[in-house]
Amino acid sequence: MQDRKPGDKTRQSLSKRNIRLTIAFDGTAYHGWQIQSDSATVQGLLSGAIAKITGENVTPTGSGRTDAGTHARGLVANFYTGSSLSPKKMLRALNSLLPRDIRILSARQASRDFHARKSALSKIYRYRIYLGPILPPCLIREYFHYPLPVDLGKMARAARLFEGEHDFASFAKTSASDSNTIRRILRFTLQKQGHRLSLTVEGNGFLHHMVRNMAGTLLEVGRGSISMKDFEGLFEKRDRKLAGFTAPAHGLVLLKVKY
Amino acid sequence: MQDRKPGDKTRQSLSKRNIRLTIAFDGTAYHGWQIQSDSATVQGLLSGAIAKITGENVTPTGSGRTDAGTHARGLVANFYTGSSLSPKKMLRALNSLLPRDIRILSARQASRDFHARKSALSKIYRYRIYLGPILPPCLIREYFHYPLPVDLGKMARAARLFEGEHDFASFAKTSASDSNTIRRILRFTLQKQGHRLSLTVEGNGFLHHMVRNMAGTLLEVGRGSISMKDFEGLFEKRDRKLAGFTAPAHGLVLLKVKY
Repeated sequence: MQDRKPGDKTRQSLSKRNIRLTIAFDGTAYHGWQIQSDSATVQGLLSGAIAKITGENVTPTGSGRTDAGTHARGLVANFYTGSSLSPKKMLRALNSLLPRDIRILSARQASRDFHARKSALSKIYRYRIYLGPILPPCLIREYFHYPLPVDLGKMARAARLFEGEHDFASFAKTSASDSNTIRRILRFTLQKQGHRLSLTVEGNGFLHHMVRNMAGTLLEVGRGSISMKDFEGLFEKRDRKLAGFTAPAHGLVLLKVKY
Repeated sequence: MQDRKPGDKTRQSLSKRNIRLTIAFDGTAYHGWQIQSDSATVQGLLSGAIAKITGENVTPTGSGRTDAGTHARGLVANFYTGSSLSPKKMLRALNSLLPRDIRILSARQASRDFHARKSALSKIYRYRIYLGPILPPCLIREYFHYPLPVDLGKMARAARLFEGEHDFASFAKTSASDSNTIRRILRFTLQKQGHRLSLTVEGNGFLHHMVRNMAGTLLEVGRGSISMKDFEGLFEKRDRKLAGFTAPAHGLVLLKVKY
């Protein structure tokens, strides 16, 4: 627990309960998490549902943005409310108001200073790829179809090199303005089952498009269009153009946020 | 191989190749397999795609109808063609023309008298149920959400009683006009993993809505609203009203057709 600093936010939180939600969604129909005036987003729909049950206009804080089309199994959000509804009733009410492709998996009261983004220690993402020639219809929404031969041994070796603390500037969206591009990857593993390949990565934070760029780069290493030597030099080069393509959003799912 | 009888169909088939397809589809967007003038169906789209690549108007023969919204991983179809395209090229061309939620998994030349429906020895269907309180968004399209406590032991015992040759009149859609309602169920098994329950049934043939009615009846046995004694009497009673509800189409998938 961190020391709380005085301020409006803290005074507000002292008189209200802090509710923590775990959320799963199929991102196909949404323009990502973050609220937008003109597009359906998960945060926007959640904010509207909270307003209906509490009468309060709040913007829930998410564990992080997600790209349009990206999915989540365990995004975490929190918001302050003066409502006396129990978390259990809140969960039921929110799920009855939200569309079926967005589900609140759990709701509970959190400590006053819990912050879905700032309190997060690490996040786990999974990127799913289908390597076979024909993508089964049941996988369309969650697998990136990449029907080309790849060297999985090379990909696994490169994935291991992502682990540790590195400058990920080469893997950040060019237009992003993060001043600090250093992140720590705790683990990066590959699992293959039949034609299905899953990349699972846990890190203390991720730059914009970072997982999708790491996935695209690993596939190019697997194809041989990026050599292991060039791959190893990417951290130092800090040049997005030298890394691989940005794998499409629908292959990505936020599995879990750890606190 | 059966003896061929003389007739137009046979003469046609002698001058043309018989192409056998294995097809997977996500049925969410379709009004089932069978061609309809005013709705998108898998047979209709396939017929259109075949016409584009062969210039021939044929209606492919399917291994059987499927209900609107039902899925398939291994529906089999066949059609006669004068085209000289190799099955491999035909597969590629059909998949490039069909929407992504319908995929031809294999195409090969079959013997002249192969008939996707009449030659079938058995079919395997799976019905999937989610018993937990909150249906994960990634399962919406393929799982029937039934968040009520059920006695799985009873359901498994009842499922075993479906096995063998029985009169399934109590499990056929009332308006259906099958004169013979005797079918042989080769196996009916339940698998549970977490909140997911799969019913897998193999039979030599199925009446209209039969699998969905068997699934709904088993759930009512599991709930206790149909007793084991009443369940056992259903074969003799031949009364659709005494069996359970018709479980929704989207939980059903045709896994495989055996020849």
